[in-house]
Amino acid sequence: MSSDLSELARRRGFFFQSNEAYGGVAGFYTYGPEGAALKRNVEDAWRDRFVTKEGNLEIDAPTVTPEAVFEASGHLDGFDDMLVECPGCGESHRADHVVEDATDLEDAESLPTDEVEALIAEHDLACPECGEALAGQPVETFNLMFETSIGPGGDQAGYLRPETAQGMFVEFPRLKEYARNQTPFGVAQIGAGYRNEISPRNALLRAREFTMAELEMFIDPEEDEPNLDAVADVTLPLYPADAQEAAGEEYLELTPQEAVEEGVVAGEWLAYFLARSTAWFERVGIDMEQYRLRQHLPGELAHYASDCWDAEALVDGDWVEIEGIAARSDYDLSKHAKYGDDSFTLFKEYDEPVSTERATVDPDMSYLGPEFGGAAGDVAEALQALADRDRSAFDDDEVTVEVDGETYAVPTERTGFAVEEVTEHGEHITPHVVEPAFGVGRVVYSVLAHAHETDEVEGEERDVLRLPAAVAPTFVGVFPLTDQDGLPEKARDVASTLRAAGFDVTYDDSGSIGRRYRRQDEVGTPYCVTLDADPEGTATIRERDSTEQVRVDVDDLVGTFAELRAGELDFEELADA
Amino acid sequence: MSSDLSELARRRGFFFQSNEAYGGVAGFYTYGPEGAALKRNVEDAWRDRFVTKEGNLEIDAPTVTPEAVFEASGHLDGFDDMLVECPGCGESHRADHVVEDATDLEDAESLPTDEVEALIAEHDLACPECGEALAGQPVETFNLMFETSIGPGGDQAGYLRPETAQGMFVEFPRLKEYARNQTPFGVAQIGAGYRNEISPRNALLRAREFTMAELEMFIDPEEDEPNLDAVADVTLPLYPADAQEAAGEEYLELTPQEAVEEGVVAGEWLAYFLARSTAWFERVGIDMEQYRLRQHLPGELAHYASDCWDAEALVDGDWVEIEGIAARSDYDLSKHAKYGDDSFTLFKEYDEPVSTERATVDPDMSYLGPEFGGAAGDVAEALQALADRDRSAFDDDEVTVEVDGETYAVPTERTGFAVEEVTEHGEHITPHVVEPAFGVGRVVYSVLAHAHETDEVEGEERDVLRLPAAVAPTFVGVFPLTDQDGLPEKARDVASTLRAAGFDVTYDDSGSIGRRYRRQDEVGTPYCVTLDADPEGTATIRERDSTEQVRVDVDDLVGTFAELRAGELDFEELADA
Repeated sequence: MSSDLSELARRRGFFFQSNEAYGGVAGFYTYGPEGAALKRNVEDAWRDRFVTKEGNLEIDAPTVTPEAVFEASGHLDGFDDMLVECPGCGESHRADHVVEDATDLEDAESLPTDEVEALIAEHDLACPECGEALAGQPVETFNLMFETSIGPGGDQAGYLRPETAQGMFVEFPRLKEYARNQTPFGVAQIGAGYRNEISPRNALLRAREFTMAELEMFIDPEEDEPNLDAVADVTLPLYPADAQEAAGEEYLELTPQEAVEEGVVAGEWLAYFLARSTAWFERVGIDMEQYRLRQHLPGELAHYASDCWDAEALVDGDWVEIEGIAARSDYDLSKHAKYGDDSFTLFKEYDEPVSTERATVDPDMSYLGPEFGGAAGDVAEALQALADRDRSAFDDDEVTVEVDGETYAVPTERTGFAVEEVTEHGEHITPHVVEPAFGVGRVVYSVLAHAHETDEVEGEERDVLRLPAAVAPTFVGVFPLTDQDGLPEKARDVASTLRAAGFDVTYDDSGSIGRRYRRQDEVGTPYCVTLDADPEGTATIRERDSTEQVRVDVDDLVGTFAELRAGELDFEELADA
Repeated sequence: MSSDLSELARRRGFFFQSNEAYGGVAGFYTYGPEGAALKRNVEDAWRDRFVTKEGNLEIDAPTVTPEAVFEASGHLDGFDDMLVECPGCGESHRADHVVEDATDLEDAESLPTDEVEALIAEHDLACPECGEALAGQPVETFNLMFETSIGPGGDQAGYLRPETAQGMFVEFPRLKEYARNQTPFGVAQIGAGYRNEISPRNALLRAREFTMAELEMFIDPEEDEPNLDAVADVTLPLYPADAQEAAGEEYLELTPQEAVEEGVVAGEWLAYFLARSTAWFERVGIDMEQYRLRQHLPGELAHYASDCWDAEALVDGDWVEIEGIAARSDYDLSKHAKYGDDSFTLFKEYDEPVSTERATVDPDMSYLGPEFGGAAGDVAEALQALADRDRSAFDDDEVTVEVDGETYAVPTERTGFAVEEVTEHGEHITPHVVEPAFGVGRVVYSVLAHAHETDEVEGEERDVLRLPAAVAPTFVGVFPLTDQDGLPEKARDVASTLRAAGFDVTYDDSGSIGRRYRRQDEVGTPYCVTLDADPEGTATIRERDSTEQVRVDVDDLVGTFAELRAGELDFEELADA
C-alpha cells in the first residue's frame, strides 16, 4: 500500500495501528468508522453470495478452543513457522524468509529446519535488522497459535483459533442434522482468526488478529454436482502449477466448464467456487486486471488436498493471497472421527435397498469344544472365513480347515452353514470438503488499494477512492449549498428521507462545496446531492468518478438513487437525458 | 431457561455447548444457524438504534490487547473474583457465591477476602460439589482476564479484552478527529469479550466468551444535553437503590423527564439512554412485564461512577442483567491521559475569546545574584508568587519577600513587575463518558425465554417462539400444498420473489403442512404462505401466534408482507377485511 493511501486510511478512519498511545504492538489494527463500515459491507456482500444465495447455513462459534481440537486437526504439531534469533540484537526472524530474501529459493518454508540452518551458514546470511551474522544460530519451529489457559486451575490449555474452519468440522454431528442429513450442504462462518506471527508486516496483509470468511461445503464426491451452468459466463484467469514451473506469466482464460474439461482444475466443485469467487471479487471492487487464480505447486499442497487455488490480488507490485479454495477430501471429518467421540458420517439411503446373499456359519461348540480343545475357537473362525471365501467347500459332508499348520475336519452338519439374504438400505459415508476461505482484511486492503487514485479536478490534485456502491461506507453525501434560505433544513429532510429508504447517508454543511466533495471522494462516496434555492424544486447530483453533475427533481431523488444503486440506471445516461 | 427450551435451542440450532465431541469446556457456546441469525438481527437492530439513528461512529478493534492498556484501565489489579478450592474434590468455587448461597448476605463480592474466609469458617460452609468442609481453606483473588503471550520472545503479555470499551477509550486521540473535535459524540462497538469465569453457568448468561454491544458517549457535562423530547413517551420501570434497601418490590413508573426532575436518575444523559434502551428492548422482544431498571446500590457502584443502572430481565425466576448504563465521569480518559502517551482532551473554543489581566515579574538577576547569592532564585520565585497574590505590594519603591524565614527587600524597579492582558480562545477539557453496555448473548437468551410458549393447536401441543418480526431468523416460510400441479415450482418462484424483495425466507416441501407449520413455529417465523392450485391465483397466509389464515392474491404477497413487516398492517385487520 502506498504511503499516500496509508496516510489516507489513518486520517479518514479506515484503519490504523491499535494502542499507539502505548507504543502499539505489531500486527494489531483497529478499523475506524469508515473502515468498519467498508468491512461490514464486504462481509454482508459475502454473506449474501456465499450463504443466502447458495442456501447455506451460517454459524457463530467461539474463538477460544480447547487443545484436543487442535490435536485432532494437526495444528498443535504442524502450525509452525521457522524462527532464527539474531545473536546481536536479539530480534527474531522467520528463517525461511531470511533465506528466500537472500537466495533464489522460493519455497524455503517446505524445507526441514536443519537444511535452512545449513543454507544460512552456506550463504553467510545476516540479521536484516542489525547486520550480525546468523550462521550457527539454531533454526527452531515456533507454533503460531496464541495459547491461553481456561479456568482457575491453570491446567486446561486453550488456543485462539487460527481459522474458523474447525468450529464447523467439530460441530458436524449437529450441523448435519440442521441440514436434514442431506449432502450437499455448506456451513459458513465470518469471524476472528489469530496467528502469532513472528514478524507481522504490511498492515492488514499479515496481521496477528484478522477476520476470515470461510465456507465448508460438505459433499458426496460420488453423487453431488454443482450448478456450473449458473457460472458459465465467468472467465477464470488461471495460472496453473505447470505454467508457474515454466516460469511463465501466461494465464489461461477459461470458463469453469472448460477448466474442468481440459483438466486444469481438478473437479467441478473447485471450478464452481473459483467462478463464484471471481465474480464476487469483481462486485466488491477487486480490479480484474490485477487479479489471478494461482494453483498451488505440488510442494505447497497439503498432503490431504487434491488441489488448491489461491485467488490473488496485485498490491504494490506483490501478489497477495486474498482467498484459498481447497479440495480437502475427507481429511477433517476423518480426523475428528478418529479423535472425537461422536458421529462424523452421514447415512446415505440407497435409492433402492440392496439385497445381497451372505454365507454364515454357526458352529456347534458342544461338538467342537470336546473334539478340538483349545483350538475350537480358531476352528470356528476359520470356518467363517472359509464360508466368506468359498461356499462350495460346504457342499460335501465334511469341511476341512487349517489352523496354525494343522488340519481339522468338521462334519458339515456341525458347522451350522447357511446362506442368508441381507438387505441394506444405505451406507455411512464421510463427506468430502471443498473450502473457499477468504481473508476479509486482505480483501478490504486490496479493494482500497485498487480503488485509490490521485487525479486532478479543477486544477487541484484530489485523492479519490473509486469504491463500488456495493461496499462504499456512504452511498450519498447530502449538502445544503449555503446556510441561507432554509437550505440546511431542506437538506436534512432529504438526508432523512434517503436514510429511511435504506441508503447510507452523510450530511455535511461545513466548508465550501468543493471541500465537501473532496471529503466524500476520499472515502469513496459514489454520489453527492446538493440542495440549493432552485424555484423549480430540483437538486444537483454529482458523480464521484466523472465529477459530472445533473439536476434532478427533489421528489425523484429516492427513485433515481434506487435505480443507480441497483445498476438499472447509468449516471452517464442520466447526464445525457 | 427451562429444559424444554434448552432442548429446543439445541435441536433447532439456536445454540449448544461447543466442542462436545471432545467433552466440551464449560462457558463456551456455539450459535447454530437459527441462533446466529437471531443474534445478527439483534445486533443489526442495535446498530440501527444506537449507531445509525443516533449519528454515532462504529469501530472494530482487536480482542488481543497489550498489558499496558489494562494497567491503565485498572483491570490488571481489580478485575478479580474470589476463589476457594475444595480440599476434598479440588473443585474451585466463587467464594462470594458460596457465602451468598448459604447466608442472608447479598453482596459478599464487596467484602475483603479475609472476611469471606471468616464467614466460611463461621457458618461452617461446605463444598457445593462434594460436601467437604471449606473452613480453613484460603480465599484468593483470581484475575478473570485470559492471558496470552504476543510474539516469539514470550515476554510480551497480552490479554483477551474483558470488554470492548477500552478499544474506544485508547483510540480517543484519533476518534475525536473523526468527530471533528466536537462533543457530544458516541463511539460504538459490537464484538467479543472474555471473562475466565471460575464457575460458568446458565449457558449464555455467564459464558467465558460472549458478544457485547457498547456505546461510549463522550460529552461535555457543562454544555451538552440529550434530546429528552424524543423519548418523552417512554415509561421507565425504575427500581431505585432506596426501594431495594427498603426490601420493597415497588417500581416507579416515570418518564425520563420526570425521573430527572424528581432526582431519581442522576442526569439527563442517563435518563435518555434508559429510555432509548427500554424502547429498544421492547422492540426486540423483551417482555415489559418481566423487565426493570435497577439502580446500583451504593456498595455496588464503581468509585468513579456517579450513578449506574442495570436493565434486567426476569428469566426462570431470576433477574438477569442484560445491560448496564453507567455515568463514568472522566475516569477512563483521565487514566489513559496519565498512563498513555497522547492527548485525551478536546479543545473547546469559547464563544468569545476571554481576556484576563495577569501580573508578572521579570527580576533583574544581575542585581539579585550578587545581592542575595544562593537565595536569589528563591527570591525571584517568591516575587512571582507575591505578584499573583497581591499586586498592591508592588505600589511602593521597595518590595519585601520572605524566604526560609529570612526577609529580603528588593527595589521595585529591579523586579520587572508588569500587568499584562492575556486573551484565551478556549480550553482543554476531558469529556465525560456515559456508557450503555449490552450483553448480546444475554439479550438473545432472554428474548428466547420470553418468546417461548407451549400451547395447544388442533389438539396437539406445540412449542412456539413468539419472536418479533424484527429479530426472527426467518420472516416467512413458503410451502407448496402438495408436490402436484407444478406447486413446488410456483412456491419456489414466490420464495425467490420474496427474497429479492429483502425478506428472510425458508422454503419447505417436506412432510405434511401441519408439520411444516410446527417447524416454523418452533423457530419463531411470524408468517407462512402456502401455494395451492387455486384458479383465482390466491395463496394462504398463516400467522404464527393466532394460527389464523387468510387468502391473498399471489401478486399482492410482497406488498402485504412489506406492510406487515413495517407494522402498517395488522394481521387481524387483514383477516377481517
